[in-house]
Amino acid sequence: MKKINVAIVGVTGYAGEELLRILLNHPMVKISYVAAKIDKPTHCDELFPRFKGKTDLICAGLDLAKMNKNADVIFLAVPHGASYGIVPALIGKGKVVIDLSADFRLRDAALYKKWYHFEHKNKPLLDTAVYGLPEAYRDKIRKAKFVANPGCYPTGAILAALPLLKKEFVQTECIIIDAKSGASGAGRTLKQDLLFSEINESIRAYKVNEHQHMPEIAQELSLAADEKVKIVFVPQIIPVNRGILSSLYFKLSKKVDSAQLLSLYKSFYKNEPFVRVLDEGVFPQTKAVQFTNYCDIGLKVDSETETVIVVSAIDNLVKGAAGQAIQNLNIIMKWEETLGLT
Amino acid sequence: MKKINVAIVGVTGYAGEELLRILLNHPMVKISYVAAKIDKPTHCDELFPRFKGKTDLICAGLDLAKMNKNADVIFLAVPHGASYGIVPALIGKGKVVIDLSADFRLRDAALYKKWYHFEHKNKPLLDTAVYGLPEAYRDKIRKAKFVANPGCYPTGAILAALPLLKKEFVQTECIIIDAKSGASGAGRTLKQDLLFSEINESIRAYKVNEHQHMPEIAQELSLAADEKVKIVFVPQIIPVNRGILSSLYFKLSKKVDSAQLLSLYKSFYKNEPFVRVLDEGVFPQTKAVQFTNYCDIGLKVDSETETVIVVSAIDNLVKGAAGQAIQNLNIIMKWEETLGLT
Amino acid sequence: MKKINVAIVGVTGYAGEELLRILLNHPMVKISYVAAKIDKPTHCDELFPRFKGKTDLICAGLDLAKMNKNADVIFLAVPHGASYGIVPALIGKGKVVIDLSADFRLRDAALYKKWYHFEHKNKPLLDTAVYGLPEAYRDKIRKAKFVANPGCYPTGAILAALPLLKKEFVQTECIIIDAKSGASGAGRTLKQDLLFSEINESIRAYKVNEHQHMPEIAQELSLAADEKVKIVFVPQIIPVNRGILSSLYFKLSKKVDSAQLLSLYKSFYKNEPFVRVLDEGVFPQTKAVQFTNYCDIGLKVDSETETVIVVSAIDNLVKGAAGQAIQNLNIIMKWEETLGLT
Amino acid sequence: MKKINVAIVGVTGYAGEELLRILLNHPMVKISYVAAKIDKPTHCDELFPRFKGKTDLICAGLDLAKMNKNADVIFLAVPHGASYGIVPALIGKGKVVIDLSADFRLRDAALYKKWYHFEHKNKPLLDTAVYGLPEAYRDKIRKAKFVANPGCYPTGAILAALPLLKKEFVQTECIIIDAKSGASGAGRTLKQDLLFSEINESIRAYKVNEHQHMPEIAQELSLAADEKVKIVFVPQIIPVNRGILSSLYFKLSKKVDSAQLLSLYKSFYKNEPFVRVLDEGVFPQTKAVQFTNYCDIGLKVDSETETVIVVSAIDNLVKGAAGQAIQNLNIIMKWEETLGLT
Repeated sequence: MKKINVAIVGVTGYAGEELLRILLNHPMVKISYVAAKIDKPTHCDELFPRFKGKTDLICAGLDLAKMNKNADVIFLAVPHGASYGIVPALIGKGKVVIDLSADFRLRDAALYKKWYHFEHKNKPLLDTAVYGLPEAYRDKIRKAKFVANPGCYPTGAILAALPLLKKEFVQTECIIIDAKSGASGAGRTLKQDLLFSEINESIRAYKVNEHQHMPEIAQELSLAADEKVKIVFVPQIIPVNRGILSSLYFKLSKKVDSAQLLSLYKSFYKNEPFVRVLDEGVFPQTKAVQFTNYCDIGLKVDSETETVIVVSAIDNLVKGAAGQAIQNLNIIMKWEETLGLT
Repeated sequence: MKKINVAIVGVTGYAGEELLRILLNHPMVKISYVAAKIDKPTHCDELFPRFKGKTDLICAGLDLAKMNKNADVIFLAVPHGASYGIVPALIGKGKVVIDLSADFRLRDAALYKKWYHFEHKNKPLLDTAVYGLPEAYRDKIRKAKFVANPGCYPTGAILAALPLLKKEFVQTECIIIDAKSGASGAGRTLKQDLLFSEINESIRAYKVNEHQHMPEIAQELSLAADEKVKIVFVPQIIPVNRGILSSLYFKLSKKVDSAQLLSLYKSFYKNEPFVRVLDEGVFPQTKAVQFTNYCDIGLKVDSETETVIVVSAIDNLVKGAAGQAIQNLNIIMKWEETLGLT
Repeated sequence: MKKINVAIVGVTGYAGEELLRILLNHPMVKISYVAAKIDKPTHCDELFPRFKGKTDLICAGLDLAKMNKNADVIFLAVPHGASYGIVPALIGKGKVVIDLSADFRLRDAALYKKWYHFEHKNKPLLDTAVYGLPEAYRDKIRKAKFVANPGCYPTGAILAALPLLKKEFVQTECIIIDAKSGASGAGRTLKQDLLFSEINESIRAYKVNEHQHMPEIAQELSLAADEKVKIVFVPQIIPVNRGILSSLYFKLSKKVDSAQLLSLYKSFYKNEPFVRVLDEGVFPQTKAVQFTNYCDIGLKVDSETETVIVVSAIDNLVKGAAGQAIQNLNIIMKWEETLGLT
Repeated sequence: MKKINVAIVGVTGYAGEELLRILLNHPMVKISYVAAKIDKPTHCDELFPRFKGKTDLICAGLDLAKMNKNADVIFLAVPHGASYGIVPALIGKGKVVIDLSADFRLRDAALYKKWYHFEHKNKPLLDTAVYGLPEAYRDKIRKAKFVANPGCYPTGAILAALPLLKKEFVQTECIIIDAKSGASGAGRTLKQDLLFSEINESIRAYKVNEHQHMPEIAQELSLAADEKVKIVFVPQIIPVNRGILSSLYFKLSKKVDSAQLLSLYKSFYKNEPFVRVLDEGVFPQTKAVQFTNYCDIGLKVDSETETVIVVSAIDNLVKGAAGQAIQNLNIIMKWEETLGLT
């Protein structure tokens, strides 16, 4: 079969590098173009010594015309605010666009001002974007040409919550999400906070209840519950490269026990290739999902407080970014959904 | 002034080693005896190369008679269940005993069966033990000869909760405690789970809502609130040596904002030498308290969900163990409370 | 094509787990049997949550008859001294055996007493073992049924030295090897030295010039040079899970510069699929080879001291253990040498 | 006794922060002035939350006049090239200056062009600087007003080599120094190489045989040996915050064994408060010296190759920077040399 030509924009970031890593081994893909903000054209194996001998690609500044000529599928792994200006030109050319930035994830254009500090004036395009969480929107993704790939924290949180909300087992006035992320989640950005000696041997809470992923999580949980869901969200940074562990706390609205809810989860996700519901008494660890596209989920009911604790683990660069983007590509292309991802 | 003679039992564990580290620099203390379960008598600086040139102490198996002859204050840094058999002999000799194990922390003797797997039949001695959290019990500690030093998770959680409960600002039906601890909290124990390659590059939840520190936390929060407090407790292990970050989620019972609660906390802790309430918008990081006896606290009110988020950071080996034990010693001896701890 | 049936003995160790990880994705292999020292039969995905949904294998104690019935190729990933008793029974049954232990690596049986603390009395079997370093012995491996898979330190050191010794560019009286290894190199062993809190935030030298890999390295360097080579070997443990960086220092016996030697190395390794010689001025990092079967090599000549510095990087669990074992399997089976390894 | 007023320039860097940490507890010092390149005047406890409640100091841009008015001793913890312009103004005012940069460490002014990329035209001032390694120059330091504090790599390497060179036990044609440093050694600098995700889970060699500390090490080893010493120097960065482990390889010029050399080292350093020579068979680990001013040294002779292996461990921020600077202050002030450092 003929391979399709794929471009990666923003290949120098962590998500871009991860796209490159996975796509180089994808049997149906030829990476035909890569770009990034960069001083001068540079071989990818010079940028990333791990790729030495595996690719001849040269990364240069973005040249839209060249990319449109050379690629049919475009992955945008650019900072928030950057996709906004690029996507329209690609959609107009009939490209399949998978956007890893947040620029088209929020249904309500007005929210961009507060959370991402820019005015979003492209409501029509926003309306065409499909939120790329296969476990929630597989049918829509199948027909999509433009996918807004979910954020890393949202992926871990939403997958942990979906069955409870869809099946109305929990109250929606206050869902508590306590998330711990590895450092790569913050991107390959030159900030003092991200230096090794700052993050190593420490854990800290940051952007407490004001992280930009909050409206995205609230939006999707509300859509799942079919009513407004309110969340509390506390992200914390831990000294690992990859991995997000999310602990969610829900108030039950029905009397159930752990076994019943685990059964609900197993049933809900039974056809999902990348969600693994753990057995009773077992809880996830990020080590088990590193370098994979899996989301592992464990849960326990505390009957005394009528609370259910759900813990999920993902690799923020795979299921939380590049892997999920490729899962979306596989769906759009009608390929085996796990192609290149196992 | 004359130094007092102090013994450390269990000096080979992490808490014991930390007692040694701090007490070697304590101006009023002479370490006159150390013991531990050990194959043969061994110099402390051979056990711990960091102490080379700083001590001639030899660690051998516990010899009660010898210890009683040589020391007036005994720190017990032994595994849970081991203090239970040792303490009575020491109390009988009029020693000051500071017990870092959990054997005399729980008021209700019946709880030991479920949480620590032994029958506690020494209710009278249990009744004489003072729970060694200075911020809650300083006056009692001052007159005590027998202190049950708090656990590491309880210290971080209780200090984060005290002002809210004492002042009745929050509901008590369900307080959520999401805690992340460094690996030394599990002790110097030969378990596969504690090997470097298991913990490094991972985070995992464990003993979810069934950790043995739960009844201790619930007991102290209930005493503070003067009514039964129910908690949900999820501990997680992160790849750092030292540090616990605890995120607590409370349902407000009064309408207040962050500034008002911060003002409450600053007032509540204003005379405490080792509690630092951070400014609005600032949250703790374990790095800032490592190797110190501080507990740093930050908080934020979410008015939409009527929730208050409180985050505390301690060094589990200092304020969560050895440092707090020495703070208790200072109080009992009527010394400057910070002596040897700054 | 028909898959072959493969057994892994010692699957609970780090090398065994890594064999499982790689072989589960190997297109020509069916893992038909796994065993280890274990309390009771246990599913592999319970032992290693990462494999959940990927295998139904059950690990139990070794049953030779059952293994011989079910597998044609046996990987022995057992502690040193354990293969010694198992191999004869397998060879007698005509199995292909790839032994990751050191029990058949040393040509001189007498050395086992000093370095591995047991008497090696099976010199005939020792003589049939092929040292499984493809870059040195590919032709022999192709015809072998019994491969002694190289140690992790030896792999990194020998690959760094081979071209210089084969081509007689350096003196052999004293080659200095300064190696730094991640913690998994020491195995999944319950030793205090291997606990997280002991290894994290530290680096230490150990077994200085007396590590059991010394005679293996000296043997292979001597064979390459065709004369007795003397080495100095200092291993050090660093806080990473995977990776060995080896820095070698040779005294030059000919006048050459860095460019000439790099050219020699590139030529020497030009057909090797898993050795990458870096460009002048570039030196290896273990990150670039993690989870791969590559060995990256960089070098520099210091003309003032007539020294050549060669630095190599491998993943100790892949090229240093499981990956190289599978590379050997591919060679024996006449499959593409990189099968399952990219 | 009256405390002296001390200034720290460059307090926002790792060495500056460490000076602040140690000096805040120094009984004879009052920190009267701090400065750094900074956007706007900022409280030190806002810059570094660990100092909350311990200092009211405000860090602002350097104001020479103000500093000269307020301080009698100046610590310069500024980047290389920055001291060069500041020192003359301070010396002219009669201040005691302890310069942690490299600007006055090299005796040969001409070397600055090659190694530090600036022309050093202040040979007279260079000649007045005393190299601040107490173990080599204590008598000169005692009378000095201007100390060039040694670099971190040089401290670890020189202390490991001094006894051998002073006593002419080894050849000087080629001393091999293989050093491994934690990330803080590179400073609090915004470089991609220093991000957490780049350094964590990796080790890499860098500036192989071209690190700017080479001429400093060669200079001091040559002075010790009283003849030109040639070195090979390979620095490597490891994922720890603090610590340098240096492994040195010397060719013996006399026949000696490990015990004899250890005896030489113990004798050579017997009055040194901060050098600890370990017993035969014991080698250093950085954990044992972290947050201390110690240099630990172990060694072994390999009689077969006539090589002696010496391994030293220091904390790069303490004995390798701030601690040694304060040791120098104590010497100049005729205080107890260990004051504030234990």
